[in-house]
Amino acid sequence: MRKIYVIGIGAGDPDHLTLQAAKAIGRTDVFFILDKGEVKESMIELRRRLMKAYGRPSRRIAEGRDPERDRTPADYEGTIADWRSRRSAVTEALISEHLLDDETGSFLVWGDPSLYDSTIAILDEILIRGQTLFEYEVIPGISSISALAAKHRIGLNRVGQPFEVTTGRRLAEGWPEGVDDVVVMLDAQRAFAAHPEAYIYWGAYVGTEDEILREGRVSEVADDISKTRAEARERHGWIMDTYLLRRDGSPDSE
Amino acid sequence: MRKIYVIGIGAGDPDHLTLQAAKAIGRTDVFFILDKGEVKESMIELRRRLMKAYGRPSRRIAEGRDPERDRTPADYEGTIADWRSRRSAVTEALISEHLLDDETGSFLVWGDPSLYDSTIAILDEILIRGQTLFEYEVIPGISSISALAAKHRIGLNRVGQPFEVTTGRRLAEGWPEGVDDVVVMLDAQRAFAAHPEAYIYWGAYVGTEDEILREGRVSEVADDISKTRAEARERHGWIMDTYLLRRDGSPDSE
Repeated sequence: MRKIYVIGIGAGDPDHLTLQAAKAIGRTDVFFILDKGEVKESMIELRRRLMKAYGRPSRRIAEGRDPERDRTPADYEGTIADWRSRRSAVTEALISEHLLDDETGSFLVWGDPSLYDSTIAILDEILIRGQTLFEYEVIPGISSISALAAKHRIGLNRVGQPFEVTTGRRLAEGWPEGVDDVVVMLDAQRAFAAHPEAYIYWGAYVGTEDEILREGRVSEVADDISKTRAEARERHGWIMDTYLLRRDGSPDSE
Repeated sequence: MRKIYVIGIGAGDPDHLTLQAAKAIGRTDVFFILDKGEVKESMIELRRRLMKAYGRPSRRIAEGRDPERDRTPADYEGTIADWRSRRSAVTEALISEHLLDDETGSFLVWGDPSLYDSTIAILDEILIRGQTLFEYEVIPGISSISALAAKHRIGLNRVGQPFEVTTGRRLAEGWPEGVDDVVVMLDAQRAFAAHPEAYIYWGAYVGTEDEILREGRVSEVADDISKTRAEARERHGWIMDTYLLRRDGSPDSE
């Protein structure tokens, strides 16, 4: 039987890797890499570094071409579902072509595989089709959310309170009901700016040497964050940022 | 200057430890332990094991007595704030008594320090009082939520959708507004049972050798989970469990 690991490698710092992840990397025959068709050199470099540090000398790499994706679709969920379906076809071809019986293959996933990542869903889709068989295991990783909170030295929740994890797209539709604390991922539209009274803890490239952190009342720091973000994105060719918004504007209410 | 690490050690599996956390343990002169006054032998055992594996031979341990806490208070937030305040006094005494100038002390925190843990808030409270000075750093850990999702091989969010992280106490007041996916921590009252149509992914002692996992429509598995939970709690003397509820009852809608 083929075996596949979906390995969370943490949010950028090579030392975010867990011992469990390092061991799984060491048991891997084939690493699967889908080229995003974008310059995310530092992400690719982190993967290379981890494979070199913890992988077998005999390891192989199987690279596939990630399908193109409409980044500003009218129908977001439908577009993602379609893209995922094409992606699962590419992934299935990679697995069936490169992973031999009784071998172990791995996907190295940024952050934690359970958060806004499609690898698990893609593997499930392949298994449901039933043409390519394997067993698979998920290895949790340090999420970009935990990394952000650690650098700002904050709790995500306040005492006994809930918090929501959402996207910039959703936040742009309004502050979520029933929560005062919101973690936002994938925000390309500075949705935080619509909430000037909130307090923001923002971070980009958290855990890497390019890390940038900002915090403050949105009314006071929004322009700086927008400018900093645009410049960093321009300089690096990509950006990965996350933030926590607290509604009442107080950093010390915990 | 004294230095303190707040180290997330993961959700039970010793191999959840990150390389960053192992290195911080190796730089620690004094480990601070607050005895919960409960038998959580396996938690204490995990800490001992990690200190032994990655700590210095010269390491010291400073143990304090955790203040008593009302587990079924009428005023939850007020009771927690009061308990935290007493706890920060105990912690401050430990630090000022046992941590010498230029030494490094560590708190080993279950899961991730940013999730329903009070260590960060306690250190901030001490610093605000201004009598005991130190610098501190937070090292993120694998959260019980990431560990649960990994074992069930699920994403926490559905495509482009938000999710909420909350407590059993809050869920008992009703399903949170605006989300279909809810992660519940600290539920001693089986609040999930009020949502028979939801699909539940439940786990206890996740990542340890005592791990128990259950999933299914709540109407079909609630009794089994309640019975299993009660038996396990009785057998171990404590329980740490977490779950994800999906509102529409379908496990495959991702």
